Amino acid sequence: MKKVAVFRKEHFNAAHRLHNPALTDAENARVFGKCNNVHYHGHNYELIVKVVGDIDPITGYVIDMKVLSDIIKIEVLDRFDHKNLNLDVPEFASINPTAENIAVVIYDLLRKQIPSEHSLKITLYETERNFVEYPAE
Amino acid sequence: MKKVAVFRKEHFNAAHRLHNPALTDAENARVFGKCNNVHYHGHNYELIVKVVGDIDPITGYVIDMKVLSDIIKIEVLDRFDHKNLNLDVPEFASINPTAENIAVVIYDLLRKQIPSEHSLKITLYETERNFVEYPAE
Amino acid sequence: MKKVAVFRKEHFNAAHRLHNPALTDAENARVFGKCNNVHYHGHNYELIVKVVGDIDPITGYVIDMKVLSDIIKIEVLDRFDHKNLNLDVPEFASINPTAENIAVVIYDLLRKQIPSEHSLKITLYETERNFVEYPAE
Amino acid sequence: MKKVAVFRKEHFNAAHRLHNPALTDAENARVFGKCNNVHYHGHNYELIVKVVGDIDPITGYVIDMKVLSDIIKIEVLDRFDHKNLNLDVPEFASINPTAENIAVVIYDLLRKQIPSEHSLKITLYETERNFVEYPAE
Amino acid sequence: MKKVAVFRKEHFNAAHRLHNPALTDAENARVFGKCNNVHYHGHNYELIVKVVGDIDPITGYVIDMKVLSDIIKIEVLDRFDHKNLNLDVPEFASINPTAENIAVVIYDLLRKQIPSEHSLKITLYETERNFVEYPAE
Amino acid sequence: MKKVAVFRKEHFNAAHRLHNPALTDAENARVFGKCNNVHYHGHNYELIVKVVGDIDPITGYVIDMKVLSDIIKIEVLDRFDHKNLNLDVPEFASINPTAENIAVVIYDLLRKQIPSEHSLKITLYETERNFVEYPAE
Repeated sequence: MKKVAVFRKEHFNAAHRLHNPALTDAENARVFGKCNNVHYHGHNYELIVKVVGDIDPITGYVIDMKVLSDIIKIEVLDRFDHKNLNLDVPEFASINPTAENIAVVIYDLLRKQIPSEHSLKITLYETERNFVEYPAE
Repeated sequence: MKKVAVFRKEHFNAAHRLHNPALTDAENARVFGKCNNVHYHGHNYELIVKVVGDIDPITGYVIDMKVLSDIIKIEVLDRFDHKNLNLDVPEFASINPTAENIAVVIYDLLRKQIPSEHSLKITLYETERNFVEYPAE
Repeated sequence: MKKVAVFRKEHFNAAHRLHNPALTDAENARVFGKCNNVHYHGHNYELIVKVVGDIDPITGYVIDMKVLSDIIKIEVLDRFDHKNLNLDVPEFASINPTAENIAVVIYDLLRKQIPSEHSLKITLYETERNFVEYPAE
Repeated sequence: MKKVAVFRKEHFNAAHRLHNPALTDAENARVFGKCNNVHYHGHNYELIVKVVGDIDPITGYVIDMKVLSDIIKIEVLDRFDHKNLNLDVPEFASINPTAENIAVVIYDLLRKQIPSEHSLKITLYETERNFVEYPAE
Repeated sequence: MKKVAVFRKEHFNAAHRLHNPALTDAENARVFGKCNNVHYHGHNYELIVKVVGDIDPITGYVIDMKVLSDIIKIEVLDRFDHKNLNLDVPEFASINPTAENIAVVIYDLLRKQIPSEHSLKITLYETERNFVEYPAE
Repeated sequence: MKKVAVFRKEHFNAAHRLHNPALTDAENARVFGKCNNVHYHGHNYELIVKVVGDIDPITGYVIDMKVLSDIIKIEVLDRFDHKNLNLDVPEFASINPTAENIAVVIYDLLRKQIPSEHSLKITLYETERNFVEYPAE
């Protein structure tokens, strides 16, 4: 069978703040700088979901992009878009919402919904100049 | 003289919330929807500053882009970047930080610093799909 | 009042063919070249709708972007997206679907739905390298 | 030797329709939705061709980009650009022109022309939000 | 008649150096900074040519994009692409090749070739963040 | 541990010329065409640096992007930006500055500064349509 990767790009807009409660305020300020602003700042996150699998001989699809888009909407966008990641998304109650950690959380949310025969990778742009990929190649 | 426009693109990342204190909470929720989230959300704002003037025969510049960039940094980026527009930027204490109003505030901040013989226009992208221009052509 | 322009970007994917039935086949082939292919070709059209008006003092908006987006969806996307412009869109039964003419048709469709105190402009990208604007500035 | 990947980006504009003749019309409509429109729709396809090999010590190239671009032009653009994939490209007479299948067809066309010591990968953007890669990493 | 603007985007890669021979070396270094490097630096210039006119009722075009592209190729690309603007392009023997001046030179080259009933505007990107427009709106 | 890749995008503007001194002038002209222009040409190079490693449980970072950006500035931008690669950058005194070779040189410069437990990859865009990656996947 021919393994093909398909990619779906989505986006969400969210507020966040980098902060580790195990550190003092002075340490947080030193480590995270302006990203530690107590009043939060925010980003237009661009999310690319990569799914790898065989081409279905009936449809010519690896996965129906409409189905993939709906899964991303339910699992990620409805929960993250126009939200404060620290306050509104339970996963970040105890995890610092760095781009790295957000990508891992999104992977875990989507992994349960994508058929197990398909491999999955997340790319998350925090800005045009800073982005992350999980799992790393 | 030959009138030329020069453009400088900058960006800042900020949290905000759309809210009019003159309206009830129910009215705010109805008018602003998910943009009214009490915990804020955020954006990567892309800012394009347009300055129109004559070409200086000595430099070949309308305005030195380094000078323009420094003005934008001092007047806008240092005050807006990694901030909560509603809480950290005094101009929005009484003005709802819609893209329209942010563009007007940025225009007023920069207008004082750009030589009066130059005309000025602000384009502000809130997302790739939603953007504004002031003054409108 | 402060005149501000707001812009909303949308897209649609369509097939088309450039052809003037008043010309002979040979003339059509000469004038339109490969764009005259009898079997059609297609594009990802990027549409930017510009609306100019005063900022509403209650909302801080020129026009609610959700309302504008819904108007574009009903008037343009639902009628043009995943369609053959020549065969499926009645306006092009007698008008050659060049980018210029598509922009004029979209303007006429939207003009009826946008409040008359607002001015309107259409920018349409046929490709990243070829685009048009109507009315021209 | 140092293995380097070089990438060349090209594009073509084409009409297509998703349709499996082994399915009934009702099944095709259900599976492919608006992509099944009998009159076709179309896309600006962005194609990225990746070639991996050693750096030639004389030229400093993995492969001359002019040569690679010419191969893509002859094998892909001259056959796909401004065409109807279903009707004008023989490969899709019996293969449904999904992005996945188009990428595999392009790979097979180019594989014969790229020196065998070079590995090859195809990335194909159907829209900015939907794209595929073959072979998958 | 309906005035429509059409835009064609092209690009060229060139070396240049900002230098005014009427200034001393020290003054040039102070005014132009690293852009005054005696060995030159370079850019991928993105050029957008805007032509405004009536839609031709026979073709549906303001101007045939193939014709416009050919004019730009002959007048600009063949003379500027892969060149050193200061040394290889006669217009810059006595004019400092700032983005402002390059735009004016390109306007003057194209103005002679574009029918006089069409208005013309040049946008030139020196980088993604620095660009100019002539004549200014 | 969870391996995550982080990416930082930077850019520099430089002049260069493709030329192999071991070849005759006629051979250089034949092999490198207009890229062999004796007066140089130039590019806006876009550089993406990929670093792979474990997420630090204290910071939530693979590597602090500010630290990574500073390393790139010192090792690459301060030495390449607004320079003539052939004349101003010692590494290219004897190496032809093709995109392939520039990527390898940048990799070698950064590899010494990035902690050894992190893997490293360089992507370098010479133009939007021509780019390279080292080491190749």
